Amino acid sequence: MKLVPLGDRVVLKQLVAEETTKSGIVLPGQSKEKPQQAEVVAAGPGGMVDGKEVKMEVKVGDNVIYSKYAGTEVKLDEEEFIIVKQSDILAIINN
Amino acid sequence: MKLVPLGDRVVLKQLVAEETTKSGIVLPGQSKEKPQQAEVVAAGPGGMVDGKEVKMEVKVGDNVIYSKYAGTEVKLDEEEFIIVKQSDILAIINN
Amino acid sequence: MKLVPLGDRVVLKQLVAEETTKSGIVLPGQSKEKPQQAEVVAAGPGGMVDGKEVKMEVKVGDNVIYSKYAGTEVKLDEEEFIIVKQSDILAIINN
Amino acid sequence: MKLVPLGDRVVLKQLVAEETTKSGIVLPGQSKEKPQQAEVVAAGPGGMVDGKEVKMEVKVGDNVIYSKYAGTEVKLDEEEFIIVKQSDILAIINN
Amino acid sequence: MKLVPLGDRVVLKQLVAEETTKSGIVLPGQSKEKPQQAEVVAAGPGGMVDGKEVKMEVKVGDNVIYSKYAGTEVKLDEEEFIIVKQSDILAIINN
Amino acid sequence: MKLVPLGDRVVLKQLVAEETTKSGIVLPGQSKEKPQQAEVVAAGPGGMVDGKEVKMEVKVGDNVIYSKYAGTEVKLDEEEFIIVKQSDILAIINN
Amino acid sequence: MKLVPLGDRVVLKQLVAEETTKSGIVLPGQSKEKPQQAEVVAAGPGGMVDGKEVKMEVKVGDNVIYSKYAGTEVKLDEEEFIIVKQSDILAIINN
Repeated sequence: MKLVPLGDRVVLKQLVAEETTKSGIVLPGQSKEKPQQAEVVAAGPGGMVDGKEVKMEVKVGDNVIYSKYAGTEVKLDEEEFIIVKQSDILAIINN
Repeated sequence: MKLVPLGDRVVLKQLVAEETTKSGIVLPGQSKEKPQQAEVVAAGPGGMVDGKEVKMEVKVGDNVIYSKYAGTEVKLDEEEFIIVKQSDILAIINN
Repeated sequence: MKLVPLGDRVVLKQLVAEETTKSGIVLPGQSKEKPQQAEVVAAGPGGMVDGKEVKMEVKVGDNVIYSKYAGTEVKLDEEEFIIVKQSDILAIINN
Repeated sequence: MKLVPLGDRVVLKQLVAEETTKSGIVLPGQSKEKPQQAEVVAAGPGGMVDGKEVKMEVKVGDNVIYSKYAGTEVKLDEEEFIIVKQSDILAIINN
Repeated sequence: MKLVPLGDRVVLKQLVAEETTKSGIVLPGQSKEKPQQAEVVAAGPGGMVDGKEVKMEVKVGDNVIYSKYAGTEVKLDEEEFIIVKQSDILAIINN
Repeated sequence: MKLVPLGDRVVLKQLVAEETTKSGIVLPGQSKEKPQQAEVVAAGPGGMVDGKEVKMEVKVGDNVIYSKYAGTEVKLDEEEFIIVKQSDILAIINN
Repeated sequence: MKLVPLGDRVVLKQLVAEETTKSGIVLPGQSKEKPQQAEVVAAGPGGMVDGKEVKMEVKVGDNVIYSKYAGTEVKLDEEEFIIVKQSDILAIINN
């Protein structure tokens, strides 16, 4: 199953970063520390949205920061996603 | 009786998915697990809605994710439907 | 006396459907079961409403579903009506 | 003294209908029964209002239904009026 | 000192009407009876206000009815004024 | 250090007027009496602000009345300023 | 890692000014005294944002005053940033 977002919607998968301690032990990321980082797993086509032309700026694979409280949580095939409007994405994280 | 939605309204029928356990027993879906999946049973013609041109992107038979709290519940001939605006539909689910 | 709605207003008369039991006894409809079905008894001319062109899609005699909480209740000559904007009408019911 | 409304404002005088019982006794109308009927006593010129062109549809002498809670009560020379925007007038009552 | 309002603002001076009793005694007006009558003491130039062209309809010396709760009270040289937007003025009172 | 406001922002310095009693004693102004008078110390360039063309009407040195509750208090080099949008300025005070 | 803001977003780093007492002792700045000063560390490209053309007026390195309560706090690589819309930036501080 695959989510195909409409308009300016973007499907996000929250990042659960792994952290390595100085002694080399890998600790699973704590959600409280990185609550708004996510990876883009699908992006709508943009176009006319609510009477305004929207051009999509994010693409699949981008790591992004999105606005706290924005979006709708969705569960599909035991996986959890967040669907936001592109305007709720604040910045792309470049490595 | 048939519902003919106006403008950018879409008539949805909530999906009650069946689940099969490992032993093969079919369990009726639990509404708490999939609260926002629905099938499109009728879609309005779009056009000028509140002064803005709306093009319909969903069609009858599409499985969709719609926005929590959106829409109006309607009961017709003992069947329950939800009528939403297309902008309350977040994504189409492709199999 | 007759109500002539302005702009995109529509005058509705709530439907109180009769139900026939299997034994043939006619029971008056219960308002709790069909709270949002109504018949259009008058429709405004449409045109420019709040700076936007509105084209009327409903006509006198249509059975419609309208948005819960929308509209103003009006009593005229002992009859009760609901006046809504056309955008509060969700769908037409075709038989 | 005369009220000259600006823009799309309309000056209303609430109707206090007299009721004649079958025996011919005239009873003064009860305000609770007809809270939203009024007569237009003055109408603004319309034109550009809040950046939108408004064409006046009501005229002096029209009996109208207006939106509950809308408008401002005004007392002038011991007479009470209600000043509303034309968009708060739902329908004209034709006899 | 003189107030020069900007845009579509209007400076008002609340009217404190004198009332003459039948016996000829002049009583100062009671503010509770005429809370929204005022005289225009200065009017802005109009023009583009919040992206919309506003044409001024009131002029200095006009007696007007203004919207309850609207406007800002200002004290200058021991005199009290109210500054409102023209759209908060409901009607001009002609004698 | 100097504040350079963006768009239609205006930097204000609240006026603390001195009052001279009849006996010639100078009393510092009481802020409760003149809460909304201020001097313009810097004005933005105007131009397109939130999609609307704004033309600046106030200039440095103007004494103005501004809207109660509007603006943001800012402290720079021990001096206090208020930054408002030009639309929060109600009138210029001419002497 | 680098934050690349979208549209009219601006990434800010709050300034923690050092203060030197008369005796020459350097005291770390108190956040309560300068809560809204920040340095621009990245600025979006501007362009069409919510249907309106936005031209960016701030650039990397600018010291700015931003609106209290605006923006989203973000933590990246142990550093804290605030992401605001350019319209939440009130003024640039020139030295």
